[in-house]
Amino acid sequence: MSDLKIERGQKTFDLICLGRVAVDFNPVDYNKPLSECTTFKKYLGGSPANIAVGLSKLKGKVGFFARVSDDQFGDFVTDYFKKENIDTSHISRCTGGEKIGLTFTEIKSPNESSILMYRNCAADLSLSPDDIDEKYIESGAALLISGTSLAKSPSREAALKAAELAKKFGLTVIFDIDYRPYNWTSLDEITVYYSIVAEMADILLGSREEFDLTERFFGLDGTDFTSASYWHKKGVKLLVIKHGKEGSNAFVKDGKKYKVLPMPIKKLKGFGGGDGYASALLYGLTQGWELPDALEFGAASASLLIASHACSEDMPNEAKIRNYLNEIHSQSKEGYVTEI
Amino acid sequence: MSDLKIERGQKTFDLICLGRVAVDFNPVDYNKPLSECTTFKKYLGGSPANIAVGLSKLKGKVGFFARVSDDQFGDFVTDYFKKENIDTSHISRCTGGEKIGLTFTEIKSPNESSILMYRNCAADLSLSPDDIDEKYIESGAALLISGTSLAKSPSREAALKAAELAKKFGLTVIFDIDYRPYNWTSLDEITVYYSIVAEMADILLGSREEFDLTERFFGLDGTDFTSASYWHKKGVKLLVIKHGKEGSNAFVKDGKKYKVLPMPIKKLKGFGGGDGYASALLYGLTQGWELPDALEFGAASASLLIASHACSEDMPNEAKIRNYLNEIHSQSKEGYVTEI
Amino acid sequence: MSDLKIERGQKTFDLICLGRVAVDFNPVDYNKPLSECTTFKKYLGGSPANIAVGLSKLKGKVGFFARVSDDQFGDFVTDYFKKENIDTSHISRCTGGEKIGLTFTEIKSPNESSILMYRNCAADLSLSPDDIDEKYIESGAALLISGTSLAKSPSREAALKAAELAKKFGLTVIFDIDYRPYNWTSLDEITVYYSIVAEMADILLGSREEFDLTERFFGLDGTDFTSASYWHKKGVKLLVIKHGKEGSNAFVKDGKKYKVLPMPIKKLKGFGGGDGYASALLYGLTQGWELPDALEFGAASASLLIASHACSEDMPNEAKIRNYLNEIHSQSKEGYVTEI
Amino acid sequence: MSDLKIERGQKTFDLICLGRVAVDFNPVDYNKPLSECTTFKKYLGGSPANIAVGLSKLKGKVGFFARVSDDQFGDFVTDYFKKENIDTSHISRCTGGEKIGLTFTEIKSPNESSILMYRNCAADLSLSPDDIDEKYIESGAALLISGTSLAKSPSREAALKAAELAKKFGLTVIFDIDYRPYNWTSLDEITVYYSIVAEMADILLGSREEFDLTERFFGLDGTDFTSASYWHKKGVKLLVIKHGKEGSNAFVKDGKKYKVLPMPIKKLKGFGGGDGYASALLYGLTQGWELPDALEFGAASASLLIASHACSEDMPNEAKIRNYLNEIHSQSKEGYVTEI
Repeated sequence: MSDLKIERGQKTFDLICLGRVAVDFNPVDYNKPLSECTTFKKYLGGSPANIAVGLSKLKGKVGFFARVSDDQFGDFVTDYFKKENIDTSHISRCTGGEKIGLTFTEIKSPNESSILMYRNCAADLSLSPDDIDEKYIESGAALLISGTSLAKSPSREAALKAAELAKKFGLTVIFDIDYRPYNWTSLDEITVYYSIVAEMADILLGSREEFDLTERFFGLDGTDFTSASYWHKKGVKLLVIKHGKEGSNAFVKDGKKYKVLPMPIKKLKGFGGGDGYASALLYGLTQGWELPDALEFGAASASLLIASHACSEDMPNEAKIRNYLNEIHSQSKEGYVTEI
Repeated sequence: MSDLKIERGQKTFDLICLGRVAVDFNPVDYNKPLSECTTFKKYLGGSPANIAVGLSKLKGKVGFFARVSDDQFGDFVTDYFKKENIDTSHISRCTGGEKIGLTFTEIKSPNESSILMYRNCAADLSLSPDDIDEKYIESGAALLISGTSLAKSPSREAALKAAELAKKFGLTVIFDIDYRPYNWTSLDEITVYYSIVAEMADILLGSREEFDLTERFFGLDGTDFTSASYWHKKGVKLLVIKHGKEGSNAFVKDGKKYKVLPMPIKKLKGFGGGDGYASALLYGLTQGWELPDALEFGAASASLLIASHACSEDMPNEAKIRNYLNEIHSQSKEGYVTEI
Repeated sequence: MSDLKIERGQKTFDLICLGRVAVDFNPVDYNKPLSECTTFKKYLGGSPANIAVGLSKLKGKVGFFARVSDDQFGDFVTDYFKKENIDTSHISRCTGGEKIGLTFTEIKSPNESSILMYRNCAADLSLSPDDIDEKYIESGAALLISGTSLAKSPSREAALKAAELAKKFGLTVIFDIDYRPYNWTSLDEITVYYSIVAEMADILLGSREEFDLTERFFGLDGTDFTSASYWHKKGVKLLVIKHGKEGSNAFVKDGKKYKVLPMPIKKLKGFGGGDGYASALLYGLTQGWELPDALEFGAASASLLIASHACSEDMPNEAKIRNYLNEIHSQSKEGYVTEI
Repeated sequence: MSDLKIERGQKTFDLICLGRVAVDFNPVDYNKPLSECTTFKKYLGGSPANIAVGLSKLKGKVGFFARVSDDQFGDFVTDYFKKENIDTSHISRCTGGEKIGLTFTEIKSPNESSILMYRNCAADLSLSPDDIDEKYIESGAALLISGTSLAKSPSREAALKAAELAKKFGLTVIFDIDYRPYNWTSLDEITVYYSIVAEMADILLGSREEFDLTERFFGLDGTDFTSASYWHKKGVKLLVIKHGKEGSNAFVKDGKKYKVLPMPIKKLKGFGGGDGYASALLYGLTQGWELPDALEFGAASASLLIASHACSEDMPNEAKIRNYLNEIHSQSKEGYVTEI
């Protein structure tokens, strides 16, 4: 497993995340259309922000590159990060009136969730190459680029610069494709930037659909095996390809392959699982765990998240994940991670 | 009073409003900074939308020109208008991804309110001159232009076109200055457009500060008397100049002047009063009431609004205003509207 | 004629123009499609700039509000204005990379001219309300607004502010409609702003098509008589409505009407005539001439211009116009200006 | 030399160029400031367009990806390409009012040239990923990306897509850095995109300053040797680094290095040489010449260009270059290309 281990060593941070910090408004009176919901709870949100909170809850050391709005919501998210021991030295305020992205979630039923996003002039997309401090990059063992940061300039160039510097300094580069249709102008634009960053990555995380978007130019056949073979040749060490309710597959450059099955849980909502997965998986890698163990830990966190009202607020600590794993293992002898 | 009466006659609508429809999120756990509030109630908002609801609650017939977002919040506000018997035939959906404006209110104490607005690419500012249907204008007895609609093209040109057509068809033109700093690029821009519409108006409603903004080019002395004299010469029939907690002054072209004092109430928040005032005052004018009676009715509605959690949802009907007036008159012999 | 006289009195300038300064490139090898022309002469251009040069050649005192590019073409036009004794104290440089507008003229034959304009991010449209110096306005006897300045913000607001201040200080306001399709986004937008400025004007100059554009909202019948009657009621003192090769009609508020016939000339190109007309007509008004004399003088300048290669460079002085008038009067007893 | 040969084989084109097509206006009355020049000759311009013309004059088969304006200048450049036997099947017209870029050249003296560019809403920068036809890419032996195409979206993504497809189909990718400060928003943005394309290139052409811009993130020492070593490791086969009047250096991945000295000529202007160099050098590579021969041929074309009024119009054919080389070789025994 040495090849996948994220070794902090003398570095300050296990992981530096780059991308969107948002505010989620989740309805309290859910199980109906959003237009009819009257009361909402406010949470920190945004995929890389959730991952940062998740890893920090697991005692990982986390840094962040972001722009947040110069208003009360900017205060809220910065205060929240501080409370969660995430370093905020490289989270700065917007100066052009950009507003932090909002996500209003619609939970019609446990299996019918959708979101209404406010992403016009979003604060996170104003992250600038000037914000990308070379010394800060150097102080991390790994860098996670959220694909949403590539949707628009200048955040796009900030992310590309960060990735180039991360390569220069030998960080593990993680690309979480995190596709959101907002702000992109064409499918080709998506493929252009996803494929550039995917080629620079050591670890690629995404759904099957996200891999398809990334590979549109290359004439692949849309199977996980072909994707793995293509990206391993480009230098990617680990791919995790998610298939929603069917679970996920993981492919290591050395040839090992794993199937990860979903775990039993009483589901509340259809989102948030991916961020739990990523944070707990990456935690396992920082600990040098064997990959199957890290994958199982990730899948358990994902399962807990889709049973919770919030994404950030409900990120589990290690004890909570362990308890859950013990519980489901006691109910079934079957393993959730198997080599294929 | 005949000169000020808004006579519906054969027209379909007493009033057609033009401008922003928004969604308000008011904290349930108020009396603290917004960043610390965790739970919010969702209401229809936006000054002209609130006025429309207020007048409709008083049994006025109301039409509306607006653009709202093509999402669940657009559904919410349209459904709300329908429920309140406001005509929605000229409320259409945005096509360019514009989002309905949001207002998060911060109520630190009854006297310290502020707002955090989401107005980037706001739906209402995408109202286009093409949306301004000449026949619809002709079907109204009065047109209310909210000054916020002038902040940006193409809404700006839509409002100017509507005002020009309203003049052509002899509607009473009401200009509610409704200054919001968002979206404007300079003070001169504000004065240019405010003064153009003020010259076209029959009725001008605004705070002292809003009148000052409107008059910046003209070398006036900043007193209500000078403002009244200036705008009466330009053809304005009625000015209502508001002074916050001190009450307001009203000036009629025929020379009559009135002082309106604030009424006793247990205040919850510092906003919403102006929309109550406008809707109840305009209701009085549609009924052909004497101006002092209409002003008192307006002031009573304003008073009830600042004691309520919502702006739209809590717009009073006639009975509620009458009861409140009876109550305060029973407590004090002093009148709230006096000729000066 | 006293009502139309532009009386300089104690003022510094007979006329202050506001709007576009451009550079014209006219082919030397003309009478073929522009794509095939190989050699071009460079001239100062832009309708209000040409009018300024024309009036200055006639010894009028001229000021100007403009933004020009911060490059060699900005130098060229500023130097040219200085050479022609036009005041350049209120011509400033762009700071955002805007470029001075270019006009490449295509002269396929004397009767088939067209233009290829470079007006993206045009310098003149960056004129800002901050550039409109109240004292400078006060120092003019008349202000000429070119309609092109209304096509886009912030030039639009600069022009509206200038017109409002000109009204405040009692200047004669001249609105030269000067319609150019570039930069406008809709017909309604055109009508909105043209009609606002036309209402503020003392003198309206335009082609029949330009008047039609201005009057779209008002249900007029498209005849010059109806236009005159409508705008006289709004306060306009003089309308000059141009009909291309058929000549033009002039309407005075006191009821007098004149027909102006085209004068015989060997035509080179189909443009530039209007600017000659305006400058010489306005010159006549500054001199307190009877209107028919001023109109004849204008028509003569127009005639000389369409026989010349340049618009600015070939603006005639008084002697040249007088000589031409003597010549055509010696050839024909018929008058070119007749009361109708 | 086999490694550098651009082998057309069964392909339709030796070279497909991607990027800007412009129109140059060069003063006839030069050797003075541009503001004082009165007469201009119009030529096809733009670095990749000049290279295309140069290679086509040398009997190479050339294709082109471009957007040009939908006006007479768009006609001019398309007609010019057709006349020069350049394929125009993938040159399409802009639909959003973008205008073809203009370059007004200022030739104060043979050694003091500068340019005034019109690049706001430039036609070439509206090239879209949708314009990049996979089959067309496949039909070329080589693709030349001009760095200017990377300055702005959507041209930036079109160029990146073209480069990715060229890699897929095994074309020789040539990156001509061609730095123009217009349209770029920051130095970091430049480095981000230049370095991405440089990593994909087989052949890199640029001045020392252009290489410095490309390498800003990587801590190199600014010498040609270090650049060569860095980019060879990334896979670049040939670097040509230009040093203005001092000549240029060429570095081959196999370790060979050459110095190219400037050739004697009576210079007229300070630009255009680079495009002559590139077209003649690439011609040599399509012919499978030894690199020193191709470099000498390139340097000769460069020399002829700086002695000419136009860039495109004066691109030499093979006989003209041969004659010039014979002439200078007869004057001096010294060679112009030496191994170092």
